[in-house]
Amino acid sequence: MARVVVDVMLKPEILDPQGQAIARKLPQMGYDGVVAVRQGKRFEVELEGEADEEALERVGQIAESLLANPVIENYEIRVI
Amino acid sequence: MARVVVDVMLKPEILDPQGQAIARKLPQMGYDGVVAVRQGKRFEVELEGEADEEALERVGQIAESLLANPVIENYEIRVI
Repeated sequence: MARVVVDVMLKPEILDPQGQAIARKLPQMGYDGVVAVRQGKRFEVELEGEADEEALERVGQIAESLLANPVIENYEIRVI
Repeated sequence: MARVVVDVMLKPEILDPQGQAIARKLPQMGYDGVVAVRQGKRFEVELEGEADEEALERVGQIAESLLANPVIENYEIRVI
């Protein structure tokens, strides 16, 4: 059994109003020194078998079709 | 300038209906071999200065008070 992480973030050129709202709120809460915040999604995918090349290829297809919107989001797959 | 990642996941004992819905959908889409999916949030926090001990301490406070709900979520901070 293996666990794979899929990180999904908005592409850099896409505005992230959620992250901007957090970044704007921080100074009001007394936290200085944060230039920017971007918010994305993190998926932990537990596989029945090993995280071999074929399994990671399948996770990539799942990310493309279900976890991320490839038009506006990038994704990254990591075995943990 | 440093970039810090805050990963926020539901605690293991907390049900994750979003992740469950994804896991249930996969076999219907032709993807077998996935036992479970859990969905969380990933924040990229860009700091004005270095990611030293004091800055990471501050990011921890931000995570506790704004990014995560410590009652139901765990968070993890990493410098990237």
